[in-house]
Amino acid sequence: MKPVKHISSTLNPEIRELITIKEKKKGRSSSGLFVLEGIREFTIAREAGYKFEKFFCCPDIISTEMVDKWTRYFPDVPLISVSKSVYERIAYRGKTEGWIALGHSKKHTLNDLPPLSSTPLILVVESPEKPGNVGALLRTADAAQLSAVLIADPISDLYNPNTVRSSVGCLFSVPVATATSSEIIAFLRDRNIAIFSATLQDSGAYIDQDYTVPSALVVGAESTGLTQIWRDEADAKIKIPMAGKIDSMNVSVSAAILIFEAKRQRKFR
Amino acid sequence: MKPVKHISSTLNPEIRELITIKEKKKGRSSSGLFVLEGIREFTIAREAGYKFEKFFCCPDIISTEMVDKWTRYFPDVPLISVSKSVYERIAYRGKTEGWIALGHSKKHTLNDLPPLSSTPLILVVESPEKPGNVGALLRTADAAQLSAVLIADPISDLYNPNTVRSSVGCLFSVPVATATSSEIIAFLRDRNIAIFSATLQDSGAYIDQDYTVPSALVVGAESTGLTQIWRDEADAKIKIPMAGKIDSMNVSVSAAILIFEAKRQRKFR
Repeated sequence: MKPVKHISSTLNPEIRELITIKEKKKGRSSSGLFVLEGIREFTIAREAGYKFEKFFCCPDIISTEMVDKWTRYFPDVPLISVSKSVYERIAYRGKTEGWIALGHSKKHTLNDLPPLSSTPLILVVESPEKPGNVGALLRTADAAQLSAVLIADPISDLYNPNTVRSSVGCLFSVPVATATSSEIIAFLRDRNIAIFSATLQDSGAYIDQDYTVPSALVVGAESTGLTQIWRDEADAKIKIPMAGKIDSMNVSVSAAILIFEAKRQRKFR
Repeated sequence: MKPVKHISSTLNPEIRELITIKEKKKGRSSSGLFVLEGIREFTIAREAGYKFEKFFCCPDIISTEMVDKWTRYFPDVPLISVSKSVYERIAYRGKTEGWIALGHSKKHTLNDLPPLSSTPLILVVESPEKPGNVGALLRTADAAQLSAVLIADPISDLYNPNTVRSSVGCLFSVPVATATSSEIIAFLRDRNIAIFSATLQDSGAYIDQDYTVPSALVVGAESTGLTQIWRDEADAKIKIPMAGKIDSMNVSVSAAILIFEAKRQRKFR
């Protein structure tokens, strides 16, 4: 595929649009588009059935053969070449693969989730503070083959570039939905899924619970923990015994410890 | 304590020195100093017996009373006030506590470690790629009260500002040493500490090992894994069963899963 045009100015309207989509939540929600970068992200998104709107390549960095190899499956998607200075403005910091795509985001409501197994293992994260933490959680969720990751009352959108990058493609491979806490609790109750809320107050050691039943592990923001609704609605309140001076672990670390204890009890099946 | 002087130019030699120490490994190693920022880091370092060389405050951000409260324990350490523009140049991105200290780094050889218990639990990390990952590992090590964290063949120094920040003070509270892989293996062998090397090749599930014996859990860099010496010298090679499409977890996540399985077997004692 040959580029349909070449752009050498960051003031070009298509480049302005790309930058808005990359940097602004509103730009993503109004357009329904998001930015992907690099072969790995592109490949996993393609396998997950994502659709693409436009491709951008920087001939100073990537060969025409490579671009051709990836774009031939998408003859109807326009390829635009950009100058090195434009590429440096639109690329994620430190990355120089020379290749960016605009993809169509998917819907992530609870109704869009694939059917659950008879004994699902679900991770719920309430209002995660950092988009990068969501990405790390999705990596763990992929490795553990969780049934779903549910983001309750999200602050950032799923297609925040820091989430996309830090998930190393797991955003595309893991079933993930966003909803309010009340909606997620109703969803779990409807399906008889036990709610295990990680909280320091009035809680017992996480290793004393049985996670071989249909289970949702619920973790909160690092600074504030879970809100009251998740404490009130918990079937069990659990904590990771900590003996140190600082008593604070990264939320993606805490969640992984809980998830893999459940996996151990389930014999990794 | 009153400031001994006020600096309003980033070209001032003391400010140049501070920036070099913050940004350059060589600046830290030649001076034996490192940069701390904020109340929390300062308090934990003070409790851990760190010595200080200089304090910097920005009166536009922090009140004289607060500065007085912290500095009165150190009447011999000079306090320097700086203008807001100087402060913005020397502060870590996004942080605005108005307060920076130059501290004396400690030695972190194997000989500097405190005495080990009769059944130590140690984490070994070989050549971690990102200073931020070391900080996250130290948080987990603090929560698990590990006997020590040993960094084999380090790439960055322990007082890299990204390590200091991401450890949220755990760099000061956790026994940590750096050495070559050979030195660490000799150290572990001398003390009859079993070596459990996390590697994908020829390895069994981590849950099938007994970590109630004196144990060292060894993890490698995310991109390349452990080098040959840690495979050859392992008493057991272990892996976390992963079932996903991407098969890659963050190193601080993988290490936490191993550490807390050991803690579970030891009944968190």
